[in-house]
Amino acid sequence: MAAWSSSPSLRHLLLLRPRLPLGPTCLAGSFSRRHIHSHSRRRLFSSASSSTLTHGDEASTHVDAGGVVDVNPPRGTRDFPPEDMRLRTWLFDQFREVSRLMAFEEVDFPVLESEALFIRKAGEEITQQLYNFEDKGGRRVVLRPEITPSLARLVIKQGKSVSLPLKWFTIGQCWRYERMTRGRRREHYQWNMDIFGVPKVRAEAELLQAIVLLFQRLGITSSDVGIRVSSRKVLQAVLNMYSIPEHLFTEVCIIVDKLGKLTREEIEKELMSTGLSSEAVQGIIEVLSLKSLSKLEEVLGSGVEAVADLKKLFSFAEQYGYADWICFDASVVRGLAYYTGIVFEAFDREGKLRAICGGGRYDRLLSTFGSEDIPACGFGFGDAVIVELLKEKGLLPDMSRQIDDIVFPLDEELEGPASSIASSLRKKGRAVDLVEDKRLKWVFKHAERINASRLLLVGNSEWERGMVRVKILSTREEFEVKAGDLE
Amino acid sequence: MAAWSSSPSLRHLLLLRPRLPLGPTCLAGSFSRRHIHSHSRRRLFSSASSSTLTHGDEASTHVDAGGVVDVNPPRGTRDFPPEDMRLRTWLFDQFREVSRLMAFEEVDFPVLESEALFIRKAGEEITQQLYNFEDKGGRRVVLRPEITPSLARLVIKQGKSVSLPLKWFTIGQCWRYERMTRGRRREHYQWNMDIFGVPKVRAEAELLQAIVLLFQRLGITSSDVGIRVSSRKVLQAVLNMYSIPEHLFTEVCIIVDKLGKLTREEIEKELMSTGLSSEAVQGIIEVLSLKSLSKLEEVLGSGVEAVADLKKLFSFAEQYGYADWICFDASVVRGLAYYTGIVFEAFDREGKLRAICGGGRYDRLLSTFGSEDIPACGFGFGDAVIVELLKEKGLLPDMSRQIDDIVFPLDEELEGPASSIASSLRKKGRAVDLVEDKRLKWVFKHAERINASRLLLVGNSEWERGMVRVKILSTREEFEVKAGDLE
Repeated sequence: MAAWSSSPSLRHLLLLRPRLPLGPTCLAGSFSRRHIHSHSRRRLFSSASSSTLTHGDEASTHVDAGGVVDVNPPRGTRDFPPEDMRLRTWLFDQFREVSRLMAFEEVDFPVLESEALFIRKAGEEITQQLYNFEDKGGRRVVLRPEITPSLARLVIKQGKSVSLPLKWFTIGQCWRYERMTRGRRREHYQWNMDIFGVPKVRAEAELLQAIVLLFQRLGITSSDVGIRVSSRKVLQAVLNMYSIPEHLFTEVCIIVDKLGKLTREEIEKELMSTGLSSEAVQGIIEVLSLKSLSKLEEVLGSGVEAVADLKKLFSFAEQYGYADWICFDASVVRGLAYYTGIVFEAFDREGKLRAICGGGRYDRLLSTFGSEDIPACGFGFGDAVIVELLKEKGLLPDMSRQIDDIVFPLDEELEGPASSIASSLRKKGRAVDLVEDKRLKWVFKHAERINASRLLLVGNSEWERGMVRVKILSTREEFEVKAGDLE
Repeated sequence: MAAWSSSPSLRHLLLLRPRLPLGPTCLAGSFSRRHIHSHSRRRLFSSASSSTLTHGDEASTHVDAGGVVDVNPPRGTRDFPPEDMRLRTWLFDQFREVSRLMAFEEVDFPVLESEALFIRKAGEEITQQLYNFEDKGGRRVVLRPEITPSLARLVIKQGKSVSLPLKWFTIGQCWRYERMTRGRRREHYQWNMDIFGVPKVRAEAELLQAIVLLFQRLGITSSDVGIRVSSRKVLQAVLNMYSIPEHLFTEVCIIVDKLGKLTREEIEKELMSTGLSSEAVQGIIEVLSLKSLSKLEEVLGSGVEAVADLKKLFSFAEQYGYADWICFDASVVRGLAYYTGIVFEAFDREGKLRAICGGGRYDRLLSTFGSEDIPACGFGFGDAVIVELLKEKGLLPDMSRQIDDIVFPLDEELEGPASSIASSLRKKGRAVDLVEDKRLKWVFKHAERINASRLLLVGNSEWERGMVRVKILSTREEFEVKAGDLE
């Protein structure tokens, strides 16, 4: 489930804003706002590449004339210095904790996969932006754009050795490659939860609980965020009404998913070009504008599977207790080719951001890989939009460092005792920073900066008596302790 | 610090054993033994590729004639199904906990880096096996073979904004590409700990404590594993004795590091070909066979920096309390070009495996990137050899699943109450597996398989009274609880 390939449904256009004074085609999506800032912040040793910067300058070398390396990571990728890493670790821990509560098992796959896993003909953005290449052995490989195909591959590989249902989650980096757009991110991390072997909407109901649990843990409420839900079977039913051939289904889904990005007229034109009658096109557009399940039932009739599925899912939502988080919205179809049933996406109610996560049912993916189908559904939840939202809402937690003890020998001769003290405290489970060759003033500042609990000063006069001077930094309390008694 | 580029020092040859009946050049290193087994285990849907298997068949497609996808990940890479993932998570948690005790901060970098970061002319194995390619923008990129250059890049990028010393750790996947060798792994994960800004061997002493703490946490003792320590300054001193020009230093190090893989005669020949006199070659080989620090002092003289550094480090080892883990061994030089001082590697004392980890001081890496040098040292600790060792020693912990509750509605009508019960228990922090459409017998087996603590049966007769039937699975105790009182 690639969250970044999602369109934000009918309602809001993808924000596109000019970034560098390089002409109107150099655009940066809101998606990558945070990255752009950090990326342009510092370019210490590579004046050459900025002076040779031209439009679409994709092949600029990474080393300038003086043999100086660009200090930035490859275009569109991120470093995680300690403060960013703490944030990432915190977020991933939340993903993991929710997955644990839902009794999902963690799995992982190579970030490098065979291109064959991702070749689909439906015109999805995700397959048009494959970060693919040929390795030295002539094999077509990709830095995966999404994780679902790898999951499906492993389910097939495990075969009869696993008992269904499978409930798997994974957190992994995904990649895309766009030639023209400067500044947009080329990688993000994605939390995926997937269920294989449950044909009923119970599976979707479980996935939605996971997403809501995550939001709740992060301090996000149902007035901040909602989850739009629909089913591809809605579109299927409309296509049936107009006797549109089955093979056009996926193509129509992909076109209709662009409703947020293209104008209605452009969408209509694209739909017509697949051979649909103008009557059918109008029918599709009308049904997709429905926001009420009872209206949908009126239009499609109550016997239709789409309606039954959605009613069941909304009744589950009541029972789980997250009904106020979800709403029916026929315009949600999602941009991936393989969805077959329920589809959903979470959005910020202010409508400022792209979809926070998205997913759905994909009951026929395995057969496209030559295996027997197993009913399946899942979602992808990226690391970018959620952090933007948390920042906006002031919900990012305090991410400062936390150290138990600083051990500081006041004299070079005392580096031996300082070593033993640090060593034995670490063996007792305390996080110990051993500091040397600094002034005491620096050490105090350092202690504040890293939120140390205690400062242990190893000085000559105390050490002669086998004692260490202890300062509790929160209370400024100070006392001596026998080295062997330190806990 | 790339653990896999390390040679296992003079003493033991790299195990090379024929794997497939494809002729003597198709070899698999012991390194990849575990992977080979899982890789060849199952090839469900891709008979085509195995039937077309030929020597050096690197370009075989991933999809056979019938459009069926190969269920294996790309050659030389691993999937992590749940049981393997639990092991990996456990190991990484140990890495993280030791890093916390040592007061190191976690950082991360893109797995994709500019090739320029890794281009070095010293003939290292690691740079000969770069997994490099050109992206669609014509940029030379690599799947990184090691993490140290990215660390150095970020240190330069952070510039004056950080206060030294920096103590950073990272856990990341590294890649290599070999054309000929079938079955050897192309990726592994590596734990790196690095210190920037400490010129004294205190830094090395800290790194060695981290490694020993890790072993101790894993249940490994100093009779299982040792750490060989030397300094490149030893070789430098020998080169000085024979007035060998400075620019040959790195090249000599790389050659000498092959002492475990090539015969003494081959090494001598390679050394001669750099222009060294046969006297110098003999001198080098002799010094490298020294196993005692006092002998080294006799040969080089006591005023030599190498001797002083090593003596200091061994005295630290006493003070930290890990002296029984380390030994001097002049044959250790490590296979990376950038080391300048102390080098070390951990090995299993039975001598069956490759080096478990390796590292050293690299005080002049930053200037190769066009920045001012900062003294630095670090190590890389791979995820492969340590797991082999733990298996061999029977030290792998119980890796079974652990779930708190299974909620099972005995009747389809009760799926509503089951939903609320599962939902509310999850909100209380319990890991809940909600099971439906199964027989009770299956549920009991399932409960055993996933180590569930409790089974909560939602049945009609109890639910009429608002009650749920609870079974404690360890004691087989059974009782009824009011649904609202479930904790």
